[in-house]
Amino acid sequence: MPATTETASFKFNHTMLRIKDPKASLHFYTEILGMTLIRESNMGDFTLYFLAYEGENLSPEEKNANVFARQGVLELTHNHGTESDPNFQGYSSGNTEPGKGFGHIAIGVANIEEACARFEKLGVSFKKRLTDGNMRHIAFILDPDRYWIEIVPHTLKV
Amino acid sequence: MPATTETASFKFNHTMLRIKDPKASLHFYTEILGMTLIRESNMGDFTLYFLAYEGENLSPEEKNANVFARQGVLELTHNHGTESDPNFQGYSSGNTEPGKGFGHIAIGVANIEEACARFEKLGVSFKKRLTDGNMRHIAFILDPDRYWIEIVPHTLKV
Repeated sequence: MPATTETASFKFNHTMLRIKDPKASLHFYTEILGMTLIRESNMGDFTLYFLAYEGENLSPEEKNANVFARQGVLELTHNHGTESDPNFQGYSSGNTEPGKGFGHIAIGVANIEEACARFEKLGVSFKKRLTDGNMRHIAFILDPDRYWIEIVPHTLKV
Repeated sequence: MPATTETASFKFNHTMLRIKDPKASLHFYTEILGMTLIRESNMGDFTLYFLAYEGENLSPEEKNANVFARQGVLELTHNHGTESDPNFQGYSSGNTEPGKGFGHIAIGVANIEEACARFEKLGVSFKKRLTDGNMRHIAFILDPDRYWIEIVPHTLKV
């Protein structure tokens, strides 16, 4: 049978990243990147935070109903205690050895110059500004755990 | 200014993972998971493969036009030569030390029993079957680089 029949319902639902401190990460992903917290699940030793765009106009019931039936969800996993543990070494960005594998998540934006100017104003850390390196049409910022976040114009051609 | 105004155009566009062998990964993500290759970009030393659902009904021009203006894209980066390098150690899944950070990507499905039965039939490696552990409503499979892929029902409540 073709993949299209048996996988017709499949959606690329979410990407999960571990975070050290939910206070810092929720501030970053909601206030700076503009995502909405669509579900928060305390699992005992850890808490899962589900964030996405296009949640603003949904009721709480609607946000909760479609968490796993949609695209574009970011799941942040907080193992309780890391935020205040002086021995916690932090997480790997996936971009250096040892631990290379995962690269980045990317946010598509309509106007990358305006988006980057706003990030500068908000004190966001950059991995690569628009003016750095050869690829002048994209930027990389760093989230509170120093995961790389590519900022890419909707109209990019590569 | 509220984040909603300045970030209104923002979309969670893609997640990037490095892969050892594009032949194995493209087979897995298209034939087994049912994604469509919407763009392939040879950058010299490396090639980028962009995959997504909902690309089946688009013309090649349409697929290419909206790669960075949509949600739910998976970007696979192949550094040329890893597929045949006997000294290549493979990439980290992000789930073990050293290198812990990234956790998994997740595919939402309408019928998880059918989806998992099909994966079994196709010889897919499982990290966690539905019947393993406490969380009987989700499964984890492994892609060719042994990245974890959560299989989650659209209707899951956590």
